[in-house]
Amino acid sequence: MMFAERLRQAQIASNGLLCVGLDPDLDKLPADLRADPRPLLAFNRRIIDATWDIAAAYKPQIAFYSALGLEDELAASIRYVRERAPAALVILDAKRSDIGNTARAYAVEAFERYGADAVTVNPYMGSDSVLPFLARPDRGAILLCRTSNPGARDFQDLLVDGVPLFRLVAERAAARWNQHQNLMLVVGATFPKEMAELRRAHPALWFLVPGIGAQGGDLDSTLAAGLNSRGDGLLISSSRGIIYAGAGESAAIRGAAEELRTAINRRR
Amino acid sequence: MMFAERLRQAQIASNGLLCVGLDPDLDKLPADLRADPRPLLAFNRRIIDATWDIAAAYKPQIAFYSALGLEDELAASIRYVRERAPAALVILDAKRSDIGNTARAYAVEAFERYGADAVTVNPYMGSDSVLPFLARPDRGAILLCRTSNPGARDFQDLLVDGVPLFRLVAERAAARWNQHQNLMLVVGATFPKEMAELRRAHPALWFLVPGIGAQGGDLDSTLAAGLNSRGDGLLISSSRGIIYAGAGESAAIRGAAEELRTAINRRR
Repeated sequence: MMFAERLRQAQIASNGLLCVGLDPDLDKLPADLRADPRPLLAFNRRIIDATWDIAAAYKPQIAFYSALGLEDELAASIRYVRERAPAALVILDAKRSDIGNTARAYAVEAFERYGADAVTVNPYMGSDSVLPFLARPDRGAILLCRTSNPGARDFQDLLVDGVPLFRLVAERAAARWNQHQNLMLVVGATFPKEMAELRRAHPALWFLVPGIGAQGGDLDSTLAAGLNSRGDGLLISSSRGIIYAGAGESAAIRGAAEELRTAINRRR
Repeated sequence: MMFAERLRQAQIASNGLLCVGLDPDLDKLPADLRADPRPLLAFNRRIIDATWDIAAAYKPQIAFYSALGLEDELAASIRYVRERAPAALVILDAKRSDIGNTARAYAVEAFERYGADAVTVNPYMGSDSVLPFLARPDRGAILLCRTSNPGARDFQDLLVDGVPLFRLVAERAAARWNQHQNLMLVVGATFPKEMAELRRAHPALWFLVPGIGAQGGDLDSTLAAGLNSRGDGLLISSSRGIIYAGAGESAAIRGAAEELRTAINRRR
């Protein structure tokens, strides 16, 4: 199935635009899971069990697995998403980037080794570092454009003939790299003005939106800035606000996810 | 030992500025190693055995291991460098980048899990994505500045008030991020004019230089552009030109490495 159609199906199946981050931090795991022989997987299973019918996407952040040498728990968590929530997208948040032959190896990592539907990609190295991630029409690349962190200002906002760099990244991506309609942009919730500019310039592109919750992004202004005329075009990602809700019990996780999904849908 | 001192010692021990890329491609391994139960490690051991006394640094490209799920062979290869060539630097070529708490997890991956001395880092996300890699004075970060690939032109050369973006990255890095003298820049050999500009602006910074050989960079113009007044300040990286020399026998590997080291030293 083409990536764009996968995205549409995920939205329909979950009746929403919610992306749940699978960013397990060993120090923050619920006490009852810390002794599990595969603690990250156990925690992810709990999250997936609690949200399988209301999440359009799951986004594991690979750094949290790689730091601990627990790639096998990442792979098993993705397999568990496939089993429990077959319509949900899996976005490998890896922010990969390298020259052509190396980028191809990273694409193998994301799409073949882990079987992800999409991977986040850094644009700094330009076209030959990005295109290997867009070569398969059934898989997507999500390009860093205007990120949610404070340092985003350092380079992404620099003006090139009056136009900020992040806008030029979006323009290049939309005009030249999106032949298979499998390219999305990362646009942080913490900068709604910039998101609104991007939405005006690119009505048809989908944005992955981190930064709601722990990072301080506001949902209302994000939706006002980023929804397209059909009331979609955004995947709203939340990690810490959902997975560490309450004391990590299933009911608290589901409650936080359901609350965010509903809050989004109310404004669409 | 401080990173800057480690770098100096590596240069003295190897009498040179050579960095050997450990980028094993299963399809290109010498025939006699393909059947080895740990083929990437076996190939790397051959390379390290052939070059241990003439390499200032080894640079494994993590994508080639991650694509195959062979992180254990990467870790074992780095341990083998420590055993065989204790003065050589290990640079994990991973081009990592993410928001603060995730960047810290990536720093754990590079410096604690793998025990690397330095890691390559992408600047696009700005200060809070870079600083976690520079927090330890005994470990370094090597920031992508002007890369060696054709796509480098797409964004890195864009002019901001007449100054190319890559120059602004270098300025920000040198002025604000290098308190521990543990920051280097990636500057590709394929663009000697840009390298010369960077050297003029930053006489004291060290550059990691990919792009000699398979990517078409010319050694003479690279050295003319990039050496500092002491005749150092560059680590010249070569992967394919060394590790696939001849039919992959030790003598051909050592021959290619020795030839490059000598050619560099002749012009210092």
